[in-house]
Amino acid sequence: MMKNILLYKVLARYTSTKAARFVPKTGVYPKGYEVGGIHCGVKKDGKTFDLAILHNTHGKDASAAAVFTTNKFKAAPVQVSQKLIKETKGAGINSIVVNSGNANAVTGAQGMKDAEDMVIVTDSVLENKPNSTLVMSTGVIGNNLPIDNILSGIPKLALSHLGNSHQNWIDCATAICTTDTFPKLVSKQFTIGKDTYTLAGLCKGAGMICPNMATLLGFFVTDAPVSPSALQLILKYAVDRSFNSITVDGDMSTNDTIAAIANGAAGGELIDLNSSCAERYAELQKEITDFAQQLAQLVVRDGEGATKFITIKVKDALSYKDAKSIASSVANSSLFKTAMYGKDANWGRILCAIGYADVGNGSVVPQKTSVKFVPVDGSESLQLLQNGEPEKVDEERASEILADEDLVIEIDLGTGGGQGADFWTCDLSHEYVTINGDYRS
Amino acid sequence: MMKNILLYKVLARYTSTKAARFVPKTGVYPKGYEVGGIHCGVKKDGKTFDLAILHNTHGKDASAAAVFTTNKFKAAPVQVSQKLIKETKGAGINSIVVNSGNANAVTGAQGMKDAEDMVIVTDSVLENKPNSTLVMSTGVIGNNLPIDNILSGIPKLALSHLGNSHQNWIDCATAICTTDTFPKLVSKQFTIGKDTYTLAGLCKGAGMICPNMATLLGFFVTDAPVSPSALQLILKYAVDRSFNSITVDGDMSTNDTIAAIANGAAGGELIDLNSSCAERYAELQKEITDFAQQLAQLVVRDGEGATKFITIKVKDALSYKDAKSIASSVANSSLFKTAMYGKDANWGRILCAIGYADVGNGSVVPQKTSVKFVPVDGSESLQLLQNGEPEKVDEERASEILADEDLVIEIDLGTGGGQGADFWTCDLSHEYVTINGDYRS
Repeated sequence: MMKNILLYKVLARYTSTKAARFVPKTGVYPKGYEVGGIHCGVKKDGKTFDLAILHNTHGKDASAAAVFTTNKFKAAPVQVSQKLIKETKGAGINSIVVNSGNANAVTGAQGMKDAEDMVIVTDSVLENKPNSTLVMSTGVIGNNLPIDNILSGIPKLALSHLGNSHQNWIDCATAICTTDTFPKLVSKQFTIGKDTYTLAGLCKGAGMICPNMATLLGFFVTDAPVSPSALQLILKYAVDRSFNSITVDGDMSTNDTIAAIANGAAGGELIDLNSSCAERYAELQKEITDFAQQLAQLVVRDGEGATKFITIKVKDALSYKDAKSIASSVANSSLFKTAMYGKDANWGRILCAIGYADVGNGSVVPQKTSVKFVPVDGSESLQLLQNGEPEKVDEERASEILADEDLVIEIDLGTGGGQGADFWTCDLSHEYVTINGDYRS
Repeated sequence: MMKNILLYKVLARYTSTKAARFVPKTGVYPKGYEVGGIHCGVKKDGKTFDLAILHNTHGKDASAAAVFTTNKFKAAPVQVSQKLIKETKGAGINSIVVNSGNANAVTGAQGMKDAEDMVIVTDSVLENKPNSTLVMSTGVIGNNLPIDNILSGIPKLALSHLGNSHQNWIDCATAICTTDTFPKLVSKQFTIGKDTYTLAGLCKGAGMICPNMATLLGFFVTDAPVSPSALQLILKYAVDRSFNSITVDGDMSTNDTIAAIANGAAGGELIDLNSSCAERYAELQKEITDFAQQLAQLVVRDGEGATKFITIKVKDALSYKDAKSIASSVANSSLFKTAMYGKDANWGRILCAIGYADVGNGSVVPQKTSVKFVPVDGSESLQLLQNGEPEKVDEERASEILADEDLVIEIDLGTGGGQGADFWTCDLSHEYVTINGDYRS
């Protein structure tokens, strides 16, 4: 009981401060979309939002792309959406429907039928052509959906609670949350040539709290005109460098899905794969990648029990793959993560995790490897290892840097290859163990 | 301060009870060896043993084999021993010298010279031919060894403190410890045909406590007659299924080394790779593998903050590699490990970790996968998942099973391939975070 009270206090503290810091007060949203969220009766408390819809109202078919979990136990909605993207090649996907509170995973044939019914009812209510809706679910696994509540919730939401206001977007982002302590929503405007476009993105994810599997779900929507095949490549590139470059606890869920929709409502020339639009393609890719990173970082900020936000920056690797593999190895090391929690300038654990990363010979040369702490306040960085030799570390300065919530750890491999990768992680705290181990006691 | 007191209490409790349960009171040791340990002045407290020697006194050259860390930051003693094994092909290695308290890792040219000097002095004092000694170090990284203390300690130990008594073996096992809460020593006798042989093994390892990198070190010695090439293959096979099938926190150190020595002092025909001794080879391999598993399990028992000892048993995989990869994925999942700490029958986290193991398509078929808890007291097992369908779990029975320190989790992949693998792990507790994160506060 004591523990539960403590847990609630911890969560309450996080909810208030993180929400205040990371949930936007206003936003600028893409043209031609309506979104919203309501409570439909999946979550047991009778009020928390648990159903979200996003709909393309531009009047012309949108392009869609999606990347899915590689977990072999794929939830029913993942299987249904994956099939849909495959069959349509991403052309004419105009809506997304999401329920939270139940993941519809490990639910057999009934689960597949439920996911398909969510698509059918959403398409019908929104007057889409059939197979125009992607479906996502997140929450408890192993239980069938309360499908009647969802199927009667869809028309209610679609007909009376969709819109394009900031509050509609917040409602939508809130309705996909499970154990998240704040809704994750980002928006921005950018220009490509003379055209101004808008991007909005929302996502959820905060590690797993049993019996929830807190899936990583996210979607970006833009009013830029993009072909489905270009959008798929851009999404893959962006997700590799954002949602696939973060870790809270290293576990990959059965439901992870990131989707993108582009409806072209802001006009301008179509961005496709042919060489004539290579420059605009590259600009869009950069915008979406930066944006995806911003969104993915919010998931790390909301990591279970996280007290630190750490960027692992690997430089001068032989390849991007090497750089990412090494960054991931450090970011996932429990020893490194507990050292960060303990505010301990432990270069040994960093070096050790670099050394066992799954990369080829020659990718890491001890005598060329340097590691430093880079404070985010712009003050001088602190060298820990220089060309494989440990530096005499100023412990006072280290403590100063480690007292901050944010920290960048720069690993320079010195291979001459010039490739780099960033990875974002949080620390491993007592709260993590409390949330994941003690929640029942 | 409170935390420190708590930590000491925790450690003290573990030390007494685990030592009482897992340190043997007597032993049976192989012929033709002398071993021992003393304090030579690496550890700062002025008394804890920190230097160990094992020596073949049989009068004939022994065979040796070793496997080393794959970490790219290899400590100086690893580099020196690896070179020695390569050059001698394992023939004529008659001694092992180990210091604890300092890992001689990331120590540059001086570190290499120090490791080489340890070999030279040991060979000289023990009247070996040159290059007859393997060297190992474990402890703090980034500092040079107090080499004078070690080099003057070697003759003292070699000339006055070696023997073949149970206490000598305990001293030797104690002298290689760092953050271990008890010395790890196992011995047994077995027969191959009409010949009786003896095996002794000792090891250390208990996760890493900064600034120590608590390396995994171990060695087996036997009086069976085995050729170096046969011994190398047997050791590799045994280590794959023992020391490479355990995890405390998933981190691999710069110093990990497991060696084997066989001096043939008990007589009998040489066990080599030719087909005439295939049967005896297989018997020896089985004995050494079982033995290595017993020893490796002690490392898990002594895992930092461990309150549970968990065996992950994967059955009916397509290949041994698949089985091991899946077992390892579950054993290393922080979410699974915290669930075990919380005594939570969370099949979702097990299934999730099975699903993201790095195996090919067809290696895991959700509809064929079954998972159950097998109590070690022989009482009825508890099915959690049957052919991909979750079972209605009797929570009371689950709590009963999870109250035990030991637990077997059986994962039946149902592929028809018939291959299996075992993996041993512990839970992830508050104490783990305390030991690794808070130790300075």
